[in-house]
Amino acid sequence: MSAPVPFPARLAARVARFGPLCVGIDPSPKLLAQCGLADDAGGLRDFGRRVLEAARFELSIVKPQMAYFERHGSAGLAALERLLADCRAEGVLVLLDGKRGDIDATAEAYADAFSRPGAPLACDAWTAQAYLGFGALARGVDASLAAGTGVFVVVRSSNPEGTPTQTARLIDDRGVAEALVSRNAAANGRSVAEALADEIAQANLRHAPIGGGIGAVLGATHDESSALAERMPGAWLLAPGVGAQGATFADVKRRFGAAASRVLPNVSRGILARGAAPAAIAEALAQLRGEAAILG
Amino acid sequence: MSAPVPFPARLAARVARFGPLCVGIDPSPKLLAQCGLADDAGGLRDFGRRVLEAARFELSIVKPQMAYFERHGSAGLAALERLLADCRAEGVLVLLDGKRGDIDATAEAYADAFSRPGAPLACDAWTAQAYLGFGALARGVDASLAAGTGVFVVVRSSNPEGTPTQTARLIDDRGVAEALVSRNAAANGRSVAEALADEIAQANLRHAPIGGGIGAVLGATHDESSALAERMPGAWLLAPGVGAQGATFADVKRRFGAAASRVLPNVSRGILARGAAPAAIAEALAQLRGEAAILG
Repeated sequence: MSAPVPFPARLAARVARFGPLCVGIDPSPKLLAQCGLADDAGGLRDFGRRVLEAARFELSIVKPQMAYFERHGSAGLAALERLLADCRAEGVLVLLDGKRGDIDATAEAYADAFSRPGAPLACDAWTAQAYLGFGALARGVDASLAAGTGVFVVVRSSNPEGTPTQTARLIDDRGVAEALVSRNAAANGRSVAEALADEIAQANLRHAPIGGGIGAVLGATHDESSALAERMPGAWLLAPGVGAQGATFADVKRRFGAAASRVLPNVSRGILARGAAPAAIAEALAQLRGEAAILG
Repeated sequence: MSAPVPFPARLAARVARFGPLCVGIDPSPKLLAQCGLADDAGGLRDFGRRVLEAARFELSIVKPQMAYFERHGSAGLAALERLLADCRAEGVLVLLDGKRGDIDATAEAYADAFSRPGAPLACDAWTAQAYLGFGALARGVDASLAAGTGVFVVVRSSNPEGTPTQTARLIDDRGVAEALVSRNAAANGRSVAEALADEIAQANLRHAPIGGGIGAVLGATHDESSALAERMPGAWLLAPGVGAQGATFADVKRRFGAAASRVLPNVSRGILARGAAPAAIAEALAQLRGEAAILG
């Protein structure tokens, strides 16, 4: 069997054609109602299909939010499998957003679920979180990258409640105490987010022969996201918080600086900004894609 | 409709009859092979059924690891739904271990998936992780507790890779810098795990009228777990790392001190220690239950 094309290469090719917009598929009860769709597995299927068809499949990547599919259990996951098949058939990449994270064999099981060829939920990339440590995910990350699947790890989330944990200082970092006293923390002790970014960068270096493939979730709402992006050269960056949480594409451009061309701005509710009819979704997507072009 | 019986009350009643052992249902490819079962949805179903029947359903609580069911997509989740139905019919409580975590409406969607009456994956409690902040989970936690479902938040995981993040010091805590310099950190600045434990304790106080219901995952492998347990008075504590990761029941008793009677020690691979035949699983479970009795 030939080696799989790595996710970063597949993504770059797609972004060159259709731009960096990452379209969230978030069939919440509220959005389903807005679309006149039932809150059941059929509604989930129709919602995804409506977005894909409105865009005539001319999207680089979509991001289904797994929580909304899990609300309907196995039937919901069957709807998600249908969405994955539709995307695969048309070349649209899929980033499954479940923010999974566990240790060792369990992390590997998630990788298997999302990247084993032929697995029902096989996708192009998945999101992970690392409260249990980046190292705990290693077996899963390695298995996914070997299969050509990407992993996006939450480094700095867009919501305010994540700040205390993500900016906390590692106590075993040399100089952390002195740095805190001198109010010049950035110079010495690393934050949780900084240390995680460094681990991602090191792992991408190790996996350079197979194209890297570990991305990061960095909120467009934080000024420090640019410095975090610089710690992970070449990594793709998923930026939630555009639109609904207040950041604009111009904010993304300004905040990420030179790294802006590696940013996938994520919009979810915004695709219904002009209404829920297919033509309205098509218009909203066309406008968002145009606005996102300033990042390239 | 009458108010649901809160999870802590249901759990206490069950533990009084069958002890505190939390039996992991981890149908990994390796464990399935050990049992001579196929690595497919049918194998998942048979594995769960074999454990439950070997125990004659005389278990307080079981903990299915969702990653192993997600490996088989919607068919795997259908097997999990069957396990949930079997447990519900026999009164065995189910703690779904998916370590979910997200913000706002998405956190609420997870709560809906795991605690809405009649939802396909409705269970007794679910595990969450809070890299995005405990506050981000609030809508989900509140919705689950209101439905009588518990939530166990990972505070201090049993694996070594979690230590840097979980022991990092919050920079906005008063006195943290001085505490670090004086090497007396515990006296002032809180760690990520300590701050999270405090948030859980406060939320349980707020929810006291409906019985609390937020538990914590605390590794049996860490000496500081006892102090963390004391910060969360009355909360149930799930302690992984017993058996496979090296901690014994005596370690749990010693580490958790006065809180030991609130600990649910989790064993997974250990239930196959005497073999995979139903009689061998029954023997292993009987022995484990006997050993766990020292915690009561």
